[in-house]
Amino acid sequence: MAIHLGANQYGKAESRVVRIYRDTPRHQIRDLNVSSALRGRFEDAHITGDQSAVLPTDTQKNTAFAFAKEKGIDSIEEFALTLADHFLEASAAADGARVEIEEYNWERISVDGAGHDHSFVRSGAGIRTTVVNVDGRGDDRKAHVVSGIRALTVLKSTGSEFHGFLKDKYTTLKETDDRILATSLVARWRYDHTDVDWDKSYDEIKSLLLEKFATIHSLALQQTLYGMGEAVLERHPEVAEIKFSAPNKHHFLVDLSPFEVENPGEVFIAADRPYGLIEASVVRDDATDAGSAWHAVPGFC
Amino acid sequence: MAIHLGANQYGKAESRVVRIYRDTPRHQIRDLNVSSALRGRFEDAHITGDQSAVLPTDTQKNTAFAFAKEKGIDSIEEFALTLADHFLEASAAADGARVEIEEYNWERISVDGAGHDHSFVRSGAGIRTTVVNVDGRGDDRKAHVVSGIRALTVLKSTGSEFHGFLKDKYTTLKETDDRILATSLVARWRYDHTDVDWDKSYDEIKSLLLEKFATIHSLALQQTLYGMGEAVLERHPEVAEIKFSAPNKHHFLVDLSPFEVENPGEVFIAADRPYGLIEASVVRDDATDAGSAWHAVPGFC
Amino acid sequence: MAIHLGANQYGKAESRVVRIYRDTPRHQIRDLNVSSALRGRFEDAHITGDQSAVLPTDTQKNTAFAFAKEKGIDSIEEFALTLADHFLEASAAADGARVEIEEYNWERISVDGAGHDHSFVRSGAGIRTTVVNVDGRGDDRKAHVVSGIRALTVLKSTGSEFHGFLKDKYTTLKETDDRILATSLVARWRYDHTDVDWDKSYDEIKSLLLEKFATIHSLALQQTLYGMGEAVLERHPEVAEIKFSAPNKHHFLVDLSPFEVENPGEVFIAADRPYGLIEASVVRDDATDAGSAWHAVPGFC
Amino acid sequence: MAIHLGANQYGKAESRVVRIYRDTPRHQIRDLNVSSALRGRFEDAHITGDQSAVLPTDTQKNTAFAFAKEKGIDSIEEFALTLADHFLEASAAADGARVEIEEYNWERISVDGAGHDHSFVRSGAGIRTTVVNVDGRGDDRKAHVVSGIRALTVLKSTGSEFHGFLKDKYTTLKETDDRILATSLVARWRYDHTDVDWDKSYDEIKSLLLEKFATIHSLALQQTLYGMGEAVLERHPEVAEIKFSAPNKHHFLVDLSPFEVENPGEVFIAADRPYGLIEASVVRDDATDAGSAWHAVPGFC
Repeated sequence: MAIHLGANQYGKAESRVVRIYRDTPRHQIRDLNVSSALRGRFEDAHITGDQSAVLPTDTQKNTAFAFAKEKGIDSIEEFALTLADHFLEASAAADGARVEIEEYNWERISVDGAGHDHSFVRSGAGIRTTVVNVDGRGDDRKAHVVSGIRALTVLKSTGSEFHGFLKDKYTTLKETDDRILATSLVARWRYDHTDVDWDKSYDEIKSLLLEKFATIHSLALQQTLYGMGEAVLERHPEVAEIKFSAPNKHHFLVDLSPFEVENPGEVFIAADRPYGLIEASVVRDDATDAGSAWHAVPGFC
Repeated sequence: MAIHLGANQYGKAESRVVRIYRDTPRHQIRDLNVSSALRGRFEDAHITGDQSAVLPTDTQKNTAFAFAKEKGIDSIEEFALTLADHFLEASAAADGARVEIEEYNWERISVDGAGHDHSFVRSGAGIRTTVVNVDGRGDDRKAHVVSGIRALTVLKSTGSEFHGFLKDKYTTLKETDDRILATSLVARWRYDHTDVDWDKSYDEIKSLLLEKFATIHSLALQQTLYGMGEAVLERHPEVAEIKFSAPNKHHFLVDLSPFEVENPGEVFIAADRPYGLIEASVVRDDATDAGSAWHAVPGFC
Repeated sequence: MAIHLGANQYGKAESRVVRIYRDTPRHQIRDLNVSSALRGRFEDAHITGDQSAVLPTDTQKNTAFAFAKEKGIDSIEEFALTLADHFLEASAAADGARVEIEEYNWERISVDGAGHDHSFVRSGAGIRTTVVNVDGRGDDRKAHVVSGIRALTVLKSTGSEFHGFLKDKYTTLKETDDRILATSLVARWRYDHTDVDWDKSYDEIKSLLLEKFATIHSLALQQTLYGMGEAVLERHPEVAEIKFSAPNKHHFLVDLSPFEVENPGEVFIAADRPYGLIEASVVRDDATDAGSAWHAVPGFC
Repeated sequence: MAIHLGANQYGKAESRVVRIYRDTPRHQIRDLNVSSALRGRFEDAHITGDQSAVLPTDTQKNTAFAFAKEKGIDSIEEFALTLADHFLEASAAADGARVEIEEYNWERISVDGAGHDHSFVRSGAGIRTTVVNVDGRGDDRKAHVVSGIRALTVLKSTGSEFHGFLKDKYTTLKETDDRILATSLVARWRYDHTDVDWDKSYDEIKSLLLEKFATIHSLALQQTLYGMGEAVLERHPEVAEIKFSAPNKHHFLVDLSPFEVENPGEVFIAADRPYGLIEASVVRDDATDAGSAWHAVPGFC
């Protein structure tokens, strides 16, 4: 019987890199969770145990911290691209590098109505993410950036219907023209290229996603997501496609009739499990080829 | 050998009560996690299994949902007091009732610069809490309210020292006059009475805690907490005492010297475990007796 | 207005101390999570920021690791007592020390039917715990040990009833003489003294708790817990009292009648929230005074 | 600009189906977490909001519970295949169905040395998993089964080296010929066909993975994983390939030299983050085509 090593990658996950910019008294903070991985021709490491081609995961971690000072962090996308290219230079056996970064949001603490110079509070909605995959070096280099947001929890208390669905023997769900719609959204969008103002693009897409969630009259979570994705593609030519993973966080109307209390859409129980899970993508017809852009991006079909 | 039933309580934990106010097109949302418990003369339930004195936990849950409509939710403190008194009326064997409520914060989604009428995003810093303990009924009734905030994650990137501490054989920590100070604060304050504008008091105390964290030059997390508590007691006569539980979320300066990179307080690693844990309370000298106010309040000495 | 520092303690939480005994080829492993805290006369640290009486939490951590080698780990109770006494010696301002330890269970991996010498798998039910509180030194020393188990998840598929309970306007629960009973048990028992064979006592009490859960015909979770506690006190004179915190992990019978399928106690949905929460203690009539034994023990009334 | 709906799927996640077999006094329990999803021609649901082709996620949930009684649960693989085929019959618009099931392990509580008839304790190492993907119906039907185990936490206290690795400017890691090797393993193996004794295959593969982890002298986690996978493929012709995702749960030797204490591989700190993350697959040369077998399988490259 003959067997072989299949797909593989290795790296250091979840280095919590915190960078303070303190060149002036008004400090700035970038608070990151950095994961890197290399893939390629690492058969010896797996089969014979020879590690001579393996740049240790510990070195990958060291590099992330050192680069936070040496290169700085303009945006998580730029930082991830810089790390990925460096790892490919440092590791001859690697064919590709993957760098995933999450960024946590800090706001300045308000003191007498103004933001404090060096005191911050974790706040805001959602966690910013990026996954960068770079294949090859030099002329063969292909860089892919998939950015996004997760843990963006939104709810609308009306303006959501669900009816006209397929029914079979096991269907008991009642149709409704007014329900709560809520989700903890994960959205990830693939950039068409890397000539992007990353922070600006992120801020605008986040705002647009929220605005569309609010204003689309929903006939189903699927239709809401599609409308959100459509708007992003229409206004952001730099985005080739967008994917959503959206748990339908059910809020069930509570039956208060046993207590002779009416409940016209006012009291709900927020349920944990099970939950609907809607995954969908919206794609530009003339999108560039995705290549390895979605390599090892978690949670998506 | 003789044994007996000792302290006991029972109830329904974590009912996720969501109340929508939709009397006008501009909806309002109160999103709660309600836990209730009764304590008292329940020997039969434990020893012989006779449940005739036991109001089921399922009934406690039903009541929380029904009251969300029948009584409404002006503030979590008011709602908890109403529930506690009701349970003591409904359960003759109970000597005391405890109701704990957490409230999650939703902000209106911004559309064209204005908050949307019925679409919301989970946001803001910290989770509001209250624990109400009521003993007895009628003339013997004593009601205690301990409100607070948890998961209030704050950080200052300078203005924090730690030195001059006790040293022994096992001490290797270096003294510092400039470090990152960060914590995920839990604060709980006991109200002196129940004649309080609950929402206003909460909002002001939260702002004050943040402001003091920002402006106190810290010689230790202990001293920062004391200053925060002192300010609350000074400005809020309705508060009898305040307790803090504050993990010292260590941010260690990364040694970049092996790479010949200087690191003057700019690159840190955020560590998970172990962490320092500082617990302290600040008390008004003439505070009323706490009674059962701190009964089963988690996480405090 | 006059205020003062109230109850306080500080220390290092969750040092993950792993001790390998490798004196022979057949290794042994003790895998601990150690938290320590000191309480006492620390006003200066809080009020003026003077840290001269404060043994750093970092030093407490160092000591836990050093003692794992210097003193060894015979049992978590013995190790916690040793650490607590040491910290009181090292810190003149401390009046009391609290050491909490959790221990994770590893079993030897089975190879050809025998346990391997140095390879282990995390297994077994429940996590062993202890909380030690020591007040004072020398002749005034009082040592308290509260040991226990948490995350002991048990279920019986019959032999559990619940009926005859109090009903009011908000009661809709149906009575039942056959239901699933399940809980994720936390049990903590206070030892009467410290002259105990700790590992043996723990093993026997754990087995007894399981056996009694299995064999008691349950009329309510309260009654099951009381019977379990009673058995422990009857057979373990070294135990003064025992406390339980037991979420009633509801398994609701699923209504399959819409599909014309009968369901005589065979298909259940395991629910997350809300859940009943039963807390109770069983106490020996002639138990010694608890003193500070339950100081800062989480999750109990 | 033209856009279109891309990959999509929808379903109900995490239905906690508990099935008790009580035909004899010796009950049996199957405790499952069932997630199902459909994919296919659902453009209308997304683009126009027309739900007429959409079998509600609520119906999918109902079916899982009803089938637990109607069809029974012989193994999670069989149950998942049955559900997937049913959903494809019930939903004309679906081209494929995915059913993921986790199963939690319960052992009988020991009473007087024998396992109790109807009382159980959650125990054992690891959680059994399966992901079934079925494409098409009738003659076009293709069924794929990927089974596995997760949360299998293993450790060896010696017999693990790591040296001879690639070094660059950012490398500070010291080489070692004796370290702790620990991981919380996720393994998933793709079956070549569906004519399998599922429970037997799972039990044997689990035992084999543990045995190989124990007995392989490790030169790197990569090499250990390859050896484990190789053994599975050699002894299990029904397995086409196996994939691993293995966090390297670092146990760092603690430097006790400041306290003049030697530490020859005896005291370690178990670290949380960052951690190495090794992902690898071992594939039979003549493996059948994977088709959609790995569709939406989480956590693998």
